[in-house]
Amino acid sequence: MRAAVLEAAGDMLAEEGFHGLDLAEVARRAEVGKTTVYRRWGTVGGLVADLLTDMAEQSLPRTDTGSLEEDLLANARLVRRTLSDPRQGPLFKAVIAAAAGDARTAEALHRFYEVRVAEWAPCVQQAVARGELPEGTDAAEMVRAVSAPLYYRLLTTDAPLDEAAARRAAEAAAAAGRAGAFVRSP
Amino acid sequence: MRAAVLEAAGDMLAEEGFHGLDLAEVARRAEVGKTTVYRRWGTVGGLVADLLTDMAEQSLPRTDTGSLEEDLLANARLVRRTLSDPRQGPLFKAVIAAAAGDARTAEALHRFYEVRVAEWAPCVQQAVARGELPEGTDAAEMVRAVSAPLYYRLLTTDAPLDEAAARRAAEAAAAAGRAGAFVRSP
Repeated sequence: MRAAVLEAAGDMLAEEGFHGLDLAEVARRAEVGKTTVYRRWGTVGGLVADLLTDMAEQSLPRTDTGSLEEDLLANARLVRRTLSDPRQGPLFKAVIAAAAGDARTAEALHRFYEVRVAEWAPCVQQAVARGELPEGTDAAEMVRAVSAPLYYRLLTTDAPLDEAAARRAAEAAAAAGRAGAFVRSP
Repeated sequence: MRAAVLEAAGDMLAEEGFHGLDLAEVARRAEVGKTTVYRRWGTVGGLVADLLTDMAEQSLPRTDTGSLEEDLLANARLVRRTLSDPRQGPLFKAVIAAAAGDARTAEALHRFYEVRVAEWAPCVQQAVARGELPEGTDAAEMVRAVSAPLYYRLLTTDAPLDEAAARRAAEAAAAAGRAGAFVRSP
């Protein structure tokens, strides 16, 4: 039942954005009683928060190629693929928009990114251990540096999220990391 | 009259987000006739688009210190200051959220960032001319690389936008630029 409701909620968010989300319509699409949906999720914000929890649980495992460059590129390509996907792209825009106006959604969104960053952080930690990156490199900051330009491009430009953008994001993060830009300040 | 309406619209966006924006309430706060506001701006989307046009016109001139590192740091600090400002921070979140759900607002948002990127691009072009960056460096991509981690941090984490974040953004972009990560592919 939860799966059907969350899928319907994700579909509606992707199609119509946060404003289009309506608990009664989600219940109708999921073929679940309206009362059940209201009782379990309460508000649109509560439903989006639960959707984000589910997205965090289902987020894909990291790649482990043994090379920092390849790992970061795999991460950038996954972000690119997700944000360019006809359903996932608008869905991410919608949850980011929802989080801008609702503290509970924001908290769930932050947790989603924490989980994702923690999943990929070992790529950086292993590169430090292999001596490819300086000691004291902040793995979370470096992982975020791969995603940041892709999200910024999605939100602030109409330029496509192409392979060149993914490559640039991975290469820029790797170069900055090697130069010590993500070393924690003492 | 336009200035008063846009200020009221910006205040409401900062206080209550995109959902809280209401043309009648904007008219009341700006002490302007409701009919005038409806006739001139038509919809909430139209009003936000005009606010973004005004923000683009008023955006601050770039710094020109003669040093790439210092210019990028000045840019990062300006972004940090803007996004941490109690009015501007929520306002930027609100317009990004609005753009996620409205094509006209998205277009105006993209234009705002184009203007801002074009304003700062000469820092990079001059660094290329001085030989501090490789030939063929994409100035716009490099300028966007300074802002991206700060926006990503604002939208996906609850970590503060502190001086360390601004420094890291500027240093990472400079290091990546020097390594050729922003050189246009042939």
